[in-house]
Amino acid sequence: MGTPRILSGMRPTGKLHLGHYTGALENWVVQQNLTNPDGTRGCETCFLIADYHNLTTSLDTREIYQNTIEMLIDWLAAGVDPEKSPVFRQSQIKEHTELFLIFSMLITSSRLERNPTLKEQVRDLNMDSLTYGHLGYPVLQAADILLYKGTLVPVGEDQIPHVEITREIARKFNSHYPHPQSGPVFVEPEPKITKFSRLVGLDGKAKMSKSLGNTILLSDGPEDVMKKMRNAVTDTEKIRRNDPGRPEVCTVFSYHSRFSAPDTIASIAKDCRSGALGCVDCKKMCAAAISLELEPILEKRHNFASDPDTVRDILLEGERKAKTIARHTMGEVRAAMNLGEQ
Amino acid sequence: MGTPRILSGMRPTGKLHLGHYTGALENWVVQQNLTNPDGTRGCETCFLIADYHNLTTSLDTREIYQNTIEMLIDWLAAGVDPEKSPVFRQSQIKEHTELFLIFSMLITSSRLERNPTLKEQVRDLNMDSLTYGHLGYPVLQAADILLYKGTLVPVGEDQIPHVEITREIARKFNSHYPHPQSGPVFVEPEPKITKFSRLVGLDGKAKMSKSLGNTILLSDGPEDVMKKMRNAVTDTEKIRRNDPGRPEVCTVFSYHSRFSAPDTIASIAKDCRSGALGCVDCKKMCAAAISLELEPILEKRHNFASDPDTVRDILLEGERKAKTIARHTMGEVRAAMNLGEQ
Ligand code: SF4
Ligand code: SF4
Repeated sequence: MGTPRILSGMRPTGKLHLGHYTGALENWVVQQNLTNPDGTRGCETCFLIADYHNLTTSLDTREIYQNTIEMLIDWLAAGVDPEKSPVFRQSQIKEHTELFLIFSMLITSSRLERNPTLKEQVRDLNMDSLTYGHLGYPVLQAADILLYKGTLVPVGEDQIPHVEITREIARKFNSHYPHPQSGPVFVEPEPKITKFSRLVGLDGKAKMSKSLGNTILLSDGPEDVMKKMRNAVTDTEKIRRNDPGRPEVCTVFSYHSRFSAPDTIASIAKDCRSGALGCVDCKKMCAAAISLELEPILEKRHNFASDPDTVRDILLEGERKAKTIARHTMGEVRAAMNLGEQ
Repeated sequence: MGTPRILSGMRPTGKLHLGHYTGALENWVVQQNLTNPDGTRGCETCFLIADYHNLTTSLDTREIYQNTIEMLIDWLAAGVDPEKSPVFRQSQIKEHTELFLIFSMLITSSRLERNPTLKEQVRDLNMDSLTYGHLGYPVLQAADILLYKGTLVPVGEDQIPHVEITREIARKFNSHYPHPQSGPVFVEPEPKITKFSRLVGLDGKAKMSKSLGNTILLSDGPEDVMKKMRNAVTDTEKIRRNDPGRPEVCTVFSYHSRFSAPDTIASIAKDCRSGALGCVDCKKMCAAAISLELEPILEKRHNFASDPDTVRDILLEGERKAKTIARHTMGEVRAAMNLGEQ
């Protein structure tokens, strides 16, 4: 079976928020740092800055470089180690687009139209205004994963259909183009169902999102966190300090559940219910717990942000590594398809 | 306005037939050799071996290299001059796929589904089995043309919708991504309505086609041509040698109209109608006229076919030139989109 390899990616939308952290980044770092009992790595990780995917929802690229760097700094600050995990921009590795084109011939457009995740994504959009590239999103994703021979794809339940498309494409490629020497070019990656802990927004909406303005950023200092926390939605029926509250409907309590210590969580729940704890104090504790977790991230972030040359070098070095892998895979693809070297 | 630039392409289906010659190749060579009164070139030409497009209708690539070389030899034999016109394979210039992906974000999938040429292409096919790549055929074509900044696209009436898609994409790109320094990256190419002289098949079907087995090849020697001509469909009501015939319904006469001298054409029509000319003799004259035109092509073909290294070098040199142009265009695209160098 060999060491599993995971390709994970994010669109470069600028500074990340706590939802990105608990929902993905934290997990990435855990996977990156897995070690086997014999000291070898338990998992190979590659981290993709999915700038082409960004075009499926916004054609505005004026801030794309700045957003890429801000996001990369957050990744590095949160523990992504470029020595272990190449970090790279999709747009800098031409092989993504080559494999995308080849894969586009291996799946029908009606199969893509039936993709439930797509239907959800375009719920608010008129289906008529869906771009051709957006329709092909799972094909580009298949190219991203298979170019680096990802064997595991960590996904939430709702993302399983995408992995199924990647598997179908891998299967179809292998059956049409058996490699002359070395057996199938692609391994069908397995979905690894993962429970991502999503954070609700400060306004109580289902998730944090930049466009809703309801986020706490990884780069927010203690005062920023406290200031934002002041506006967080709590139990709307707990009006005066001593009113009893319901932690289970409170945004702030959901953050405590993630960032405070187990004892603290239990006593907060108790004191909220009894009315012994007021929301103002509770929020202060919550902000402090979040800032405590963010402290080392903030410090690393500061170091990277003040050294843009190093950040750029990390990116270029990651792209050098990614190109080596990508070219090797495309060499096999070309050999299997009889397309000539290049 | 500058010198017009034309990108023309064919799928690498192996040895070409007379239909390819009269319908395209002959025209290509005329365009290539246009000169202005001052001796400068009247038109810049690039000739594309559209191997990726081939995948839209067949995934079988086992013979693709051999078919590429056979076709290229026919091109060269028919007068394509690699000093004037770079010849190159789509699959060897990664920038085609990069631009394809970027352009895929600039057009809706419903726009592509409404493309009348596509509807015709898939008439025999179940729309459900249309691949995503096939649906995107005009997007890849737009990338092919705009990568080399083609300004004129020679097309038959039925191909105008494709050029319209290319123009729409160029317009959309230019409006979203105005180039910081140098104005619009792309020129909207103009369709140049061209009357292509199609040849009917030897069996009288509307066109010559390899899969119907009704072709005369550019590489057929005089005996091959004569042998094939024997089976050509004539006026089915002219049964005996002296029966009067109707040239207007006769396949052989349609070849005379293209390959024989004007006087000969007139006298054949007359003698066929009067019954003075029998089909056997008429076919001999027709085969001779075709072989006369093919003679210099056959000779050049023979020289190239016996020197595969030269043919390969011509291809590689064409690809070197094409890459230079393609990279330059993608440099402008990347600058306009703010995507970084690469
Ligand atoms: S006391 Fe804390 S948990 Fe209870 S409602 Fe107020 S903020 Fe929420
Ligand atoms: S004589 Fe010639 S033109 Fe007339 S029917 Fe026969 S082959 Fe055709």
